[in-house]
Amino acid sequence: MRHIPGLEWLPSGQAVLSGPLLEAFRFLDVRFARWARDAGAVEYRFPLFLSASELQRLDYFRSFPHLVTFPVALDEDPESLRAFAAADEPLDGEGAVRLGKLAPAREVLTPAACYHFYVLLQGRELDAPENLTTVATCFRREAYYRPLQRQWNFTMRELVRIGTLEEVKEFLETMRARADELIAALELPVEWRVATDPFFDPTRNPKHLAQTLEPVKTEMVYDGELAIGSVNFHRNFFGETFGITRGGEPAFSGCIAFGLERWLYALLTRYGPDPRAWPAAVVEAR
Amino acid sequence: MRHIPGLEWLPSGQAVLSGPLLEAFRFLDVRFARWARDAGAVEYRFPLFLSASELQRLDYFRSFPHLVTFPVALDEDPESLRAFAAADEPLDGEGAVRLGKLAPAREVLTPAACYHFYVLLQGRELDAPENLTTVATCFRREAYYRPLQRQWNFTMRELVRIGTLEEVKEFLETMRARADELIAALELPVEWRVATDPFFDPTRNPKHLAQTLEPVKTEMVYDGELAIGSVNFHRNFFGETFGITRGGEPAFSGCIAFGLERWLYALLTRYGPDPRAWPAAVVEAR
Repeated sequence: MRHIPGLEWLPSGQAVLSGPLLEAFRFLDVRFARWARDAGAVEYRFPLFLSASELQRLDYFRSFPHLVTFPVALDEDPESLRAFAAADEPLDGEGAVRLGKLAPAREVLTPAACYHFYVLLQGRELDAPENLTTVATCFRREAYYRPLQRQWNFTMRELVRIGTLEEVKEFLETMRARADELIAALELPVEWRVATDPFFDPTRNPKHLAQTLEPVKTEMVYDGELAIGSVNFHRNFFGETFGITRGGEPAFSGCIAFGLERWLYALLTRYGPDPRAWPAAVVEAR
Repeated sequence: MRHIPGLEWLPSGQAVLSGPLLEAFRFLDVRFARWARDAGAVEYRFPLFLSASELQRLDYFRSFPHLVTFPVALDEDPESLRAFAAADEPLDGEGAVRLGKLAPAREVLTPAACYHFYVLLQGRELDAPENLTTVATCFRREAYYRPLQRQWNFTMRELVRIGTLEEVKEFLETMRARADELIAALELPVEWRVATDPFFDPTRNPKHLAQTLEPVKTEMVYDGELAIGSVNFHRNFFGETFGITRGGEPAFSGCIAFGLERWLYALLTRYGPDPRAWPAAVVEAR
């Protein structure tokens, strides 16, 4: 995939976008966001951090220690900073920073866009379903990285509903149908497949067992190998955890998520790098 | 500043945007980006990380150890992850994660948007000036945080030229004039003030002395206290460091940078939270 106009690869396995690829990235995002707005959703823009103590309520550190990324600063004590700054070689021979003492790590780099909503709405009684959308840079450490396909940081657009079980199911069905329409218009080879979240040590995690018994995640798998999006039904897990209620009961929630860089990967491998060969659905925001 | 429609404050001192504030955020960014495009600039979208070894070439760790933020993951050894996941209390009593052993830290969370360009263009001989723009989430650890005013992560739009000394000076003058027009149209109380970069231990840093002797940074200071943007002339520092040449000599570079959340702060404190009172220049993208 080298020498594609508008795509640069970094040694860290990340992509830089410009030109037609950046336009396609934005058109796709505008389109997904519009589906949410058509359903009455309000758009939010969140900071890149989530509080570690909020994530702890989701048992996140036990479930995904292999993925989590923390933003850490150096210990703020001036003597400590001075020692760091005075080092002859701040980096070791393999390009790693000799960190020394660190400041307390109370934040986590966003692992999934929709978590922000449950934290924001905690403690609320909803008198109507909440329709929400956001696009966020998400961070997941992986065993290896490939530009567009598997990046330590990548971009996720999410469309979310919080409400009763019926309200959430109806939303997910509507959004899945819209995704199917776009997949058909783009003639992308996509199959829907039941999946589970990528738990650490899954056989020891009761959440993994629960997801296996009652599937909650369905992925849009491109070309038999790459999930470019997913539909997730969370039951009332977030409602219970964050005290969000609907009709006096813990609220249900669900989301449809799109990995924007992976959609570009699908576009490039299906139609090639020349934008003149791309379908109208990608070069025109509708 | 509480109870402003479209603004939520997080305990971490960061802002969540929606509704009219999110629209104003986007309109401002679209406007700044258009100034760059009018000058022939190409827009790029970068990942959130910069390589620590590239930043080391700028002597960044010696100059700004107090600001730098690293994305760090846990040591990937399964035994180490298992120990972390098995902890009864992953967080201490003050909400800090008991990190244990960490994976090598080879990346840095973007401290300034334009650094990405010098890394990307390293080693190039330019046969015309490069006009560039990007918007990036930037990260700077501070002694305290205030939503919109001083956030650990915030959004920076930058307009950049790399070329000869004359080409860069002409670009910065043009862009400063456009900023002045907008500041006048919005009737914002802004003064331009010479500033220096926020070096650690400035009296010991020769770069700080150089900036004091020959100013390179001029800030747009809102209401006598908050820099909402800056014009920066880097001389040929980045050209020399990254081997970018123009006419056979190390290239000069400069940028104009806008802190988007701080523009919202200026808008809110100047015109109040009701969008009906906001000037057309903020509610219409032009």
